[in-house]
Amino acid sequence: MLVTGASGFIGRRTLPLLLERGFEVHAVHHRGERGQTPGVEWHRADLLVSEELEPLIDLVRATHLLHLAWYAVPRLYWDAPENTRWLEASLRLVERFATSGRRAVLAGTCAEYDWSFGYCSEHVTPLRPTTLYGTSKHKLHGLAAALSERLGLSLAWARLFFLYGPGEDPDRLVPSVVRALLRGEAAPCSEGSQVRDFLHVDDAAWALVRLLESKVEGPVNIASGRPVGLRELLLRIGEAVGTPELLEFGKVPLRPGEPPLLVADVRRLANEVGWEQRWTLQTGITETVEWWRDALRQERDKVRDV
Amino acid sequence: MLVTGASGFIGRRTLPLLLERGFEVHAVHHRGERGQTPGVEWHRADLLVSEELEPLIDLVRATHLLHLAWYAVPRLYWDAPENTRWLEASLRLVERFATSGRRAVLAGTCAEYDWSFGYCSEHVTPLRPTTLYGTSKHKLHGLAAALSERLGLSLAWARLFFLYGPGEDPDRLVPSVVRALLRGEAAPCSEGSQVRDFLHVDDAAWALVRLLESKVEGPVNIASGRPVGLRELLLRIGEAVGTPELLEFGKVPLRPGEPPLLVADVRRLANEVGWEQRWTLQTGITETVEWWRDALRQERDKVRDV
Repeated sequence: MLVTGASGFIGRRTLPLLLERGFEVHAVHHRGERGQTPGVEWHRADLLVSEELEPLIDLVRATHLLHLAWYAVPRLYWDAPENTRWLEASLRLVERFATSGRRAVLAGTCAEYDWSFGYCSEHVTPLRPTTLYGTSKHKLHGLAAALSERLGLSLAWARLFFLYGPGEDPDRLVPSVVRALLRGEAAPCSEGSQVRDFLHVDDAAWALVRLLESKVEGPVNIASGRPVGLRELLLRIGEAVGTPELLEFGKVPLRPGEPPLLVADVRRLANEVGWEQRWTLQTGITETVEWWRDALRQERDKVRDV
Repeated sequence: MLVTGASGFIGRRTLPLLLERGFEVHAVHHRGERGQTPGVEWHRADLLVSEELEPLIDLVRATHLLHLAWYAVPRLYWDAPENTRWLEASLRLVERFATSGRRAVLAGTCAEYDWSFGYCSEHVTPLRPTTLYGTSKHKLHGLAAALSERLGLSLAWARLFFLYGPGEDPDRLVPSVVRALLRGEAAPCSEGSQVRDFLHVDDAAWALVRLLESKVEGPVNIASGRPVGLRELLLRIGEAVGTPELLEFGKVPLRPGEPPLLVADVRRLANEVGWEQRWTLQTGITETVEWWRDALRQERDKVRDV
């Protein structure tokens, strides 16, 4: 099987799980470093370049595809022109993969939904993305689904919500707050009234693997389904670090139009795919904070060695 | 001003607040006992009977109306034929009140929304009631709004969500669990994965009074906007009583079609009406448990005296 974005935040977590399930794993990376998981066959390729993508697909001739690669620079990815290039490349990938492939899972996003509805249910909530990222993913789903049907490929569309966990980009919300507090710096936050759906990246990786193994087709939310206030999430981080007083709630204004609630309906994932959440928010945040504590210690040690 | 359902769970909580705001309060009751609030003028009348309703309205000649009376027997009210009779009587009430009245707040319900959307926002979420109660309230809103516009009345429609607090009907969820635990009996519950929106009845009463005083028209959710898992709510009750081990989660099956999440958007209430929640779930549940502890003690003392 083929995993794209295999060196990314989610991708690298899927590799040991896929091996454990008996897959022969071919992992594609480009900018990111290849991981250390033994038993994985790594391929370096820029999927945006046809001349690199096509020979790779033809070489591997995989039956299963987990396509996670995309443009993902924090903040910039929402409206970067790279989104449309990834849409095109993803379609080429699906088409070429179909010559040998039987089953594909592609990464979608909660940003496809109309966020004014707040609660996102696959067969109920209207889709009305307001960013180029959400729009590109949404279009890719429609096109890839039509293509798959014509080519006899079984396709599931994994709508990922808010993830957290070790190895997340340091510029994203959870790592930026964790790192500030671990350095003893104040962390200016909004008032934290927003309710969101946070899932540990390991749980997301498991969900993707279970989904790939299942016969479920169409959109499936990958999320916890458990609403948590941002204030509560941040306070858990504060408690785990031991310095909740460094959280400065209300210092950052809410972005205009920021929805009060964004939570996933996870009944498809639970009942049809048969997935169960393993990490509680409590244990997941504690693990994440400890991971960053080690990482910062190593950063300091490196500086000292120089 | 006139309050209907004034001896009810919510109604009796609004009376001292209305007096405090300087209203001359005329309170209507029928089956329930009149309350003890000094300064309130009580009237006994069956609003379902025109011959009782009309003379009362003509006697009081109120400028403000808070209409809370309705058929409310736990479980039965969802589909009882009384709902349509209350719809008719409420329309007669609004029409007659308009001869002297300027401003009315009528009680609606979260059961007007299409619950498959989960998150209920006044101007976004479709209305698709599935019970006679929800349908009757929804029709009343449409008819009362049209009538009010024709008669020059300012009308707000207060959509009440899940309330709790002292004095709730003992057959409803929170009191039934509180009473079982206080008696040392086991309380069979569902697994408790449902996410709901619970508001203390005092906060609801305040919201209704603030809404009545405001100029806001149309539907306004009366709720906390803060999602809480039923399991967490029940555990808080268990902790407050001191016997969480008596909660038997998973003993009662989920009702088919029970929505995983039902939460209100409270931005209209917060931003347009200017209301703020006063009770946290923690303090509210503790107060409710203590209220029932006293009530059960008094019940026991009465039995002993006989």
